[in-house]
Amino acid sequence: MGTSSAGNAQYQRLVTDLLGVMAYGELSAFGRLSSDARYAPTLHDRALLGRIAVIEFQHFELASARLEELGVDAEETMLPFQRSVDHFHERTKPGDWYESLMKAYVIDTVSSDFYRSVSEFLDADTRELVERILVSEESTAVLRELLQHALAEDPRLASRLALWGRRLVGEALTQAQRVSMEHALLGPLLSSTGDARETVGKLTADLAERHSRRMTGLGLTA
Amino acid sequence: MGTSSAGNAQYQRLVTDLLGVMAYGELSAFGRLSSDARYAPTLHDRALLGRIAVIEFQHFELASARLEELGVDAEETMLPFQRSVDHFHERTKPGDWYESLMKAYVIDTVSSDFYRSVSEFLDADTRELVERILVSEESTAVLRELLQHALAEDPRLASRLALWGRRLVGEALTQAQRVSMEHALLGPLLSSTGDARETVGKLTADLAERHSRRMTGLGLTA
Repeated sequence: MGTSSAGNAQYQRLVTDLLGVMAYGELSAFGRLSSDARYAPTLHDRALLGRIAVIEFQHFELASARLEELGVDAEETMLPFQRSVDHFHERTKPGDWYESLMKAYVIDTVSSDFYRSVSEFLDADTRELVERILVSEESTAVLRELLQHALAEDPRLASRLALWGRRLVGEALTQAQRVSMEHALLGPLLSSTGDARETVGKLTADLAERHSRRMTGLGLTA
Repeated sequence: MGTSSAGNAQYQRLVTDLLGVMAYGELSAFGRLSSDARYAPTLHDRALLGRIAVIEFQHFELASARLEELGVDAEETMLPFQRSVDHFHERTKPGDWYESLMKAYVIDTVSSDFYRSVSEFLDADTRELVERILVSEESTAVLRELLQHALAEDPRLASRLALWGRRLVGEALTQAQRVSMEHALLGPLLSSTGDARETVGKLTADLAERHSRRMTGLGLTA
């Protein structure tokens, strides 16, 4: 499905749904991260996590502004995703500062991979916007460095964080599958290949593999 | 004490202490507000409070950057104020969304009045920076409108919020006095008049009166 279909209602619905889930995801990540920042061991670290939270908020504003441009109410578009995103956060409450860092890193990277895959089949404007909402190379690098530093300081953290990383990616992939299925977010991907089960399976495996490589990069057994 | 004294060590200490307490106050307000935002009745309101929190973070960054320019470590400068600011927040935990709004509004306005009074006796550069850190006309207006709207929707809120406002201003003034005394923040004000007790008393009365006028503006009995 290319730009030629950009006019049709089903396609517009797909785009607004995608922006809606991204907007709510960012707004909710902002709230979680800025709360978690309070548990930072130093004010310097608290400020680093605060800055990442602020970037999430700005990305929420980008998505939200585009929704308004498209003539839809941002709140209405986010609401259908609120329950499952909140549920995900309830199930993955970090126990301390290090688990907060790991959660931010895993969610940030896995959701970027996911939204990027979905947006590959969308029109250029939407794809470019999704890219801008996702681009957080700076945030990802800061989180990675904080994790690397923490692991170097206390090698005993490794097994706990490896376990936590597996738990997080499991919940994130389940969440991504459920949201995609309920809201037909994978529509373009599915219609381009035909077999829904196979496509979803392949995407999930791909996301898991990229996550695994990042965990190995941190010296953790994914 | 004017710009002529800007070179002396005691004066520099006063400036860094003032920026230190402001920086920590903003960082801490950011964390509290963005957490409180989760209890907003609508996603629209959550985003409004989130935006105010983001502005607090940007003000923290302004103060922090100036401290670094002055060659002092921002974290070191903030630390001496952490305990009393945190203690203040512990003593004034909002019970719900409306109490959060009121707290943000009261702290925002009373602390602006306080820092502005202190900075009147400082050099023009510092005064201008303090003004930029404080300027949040937009935030104050948004909070006032949210409160006015809530009070119009549910007039029973008035007595509870009036009581809460009195509690907040009492704690805020006690806090301002303690911090000023412990860190000699009122140095310039005191040395310009001579009588410490009288000056602090007058400043406190002045802050209380301005707060009272704002409460009356909301239709509350301050």
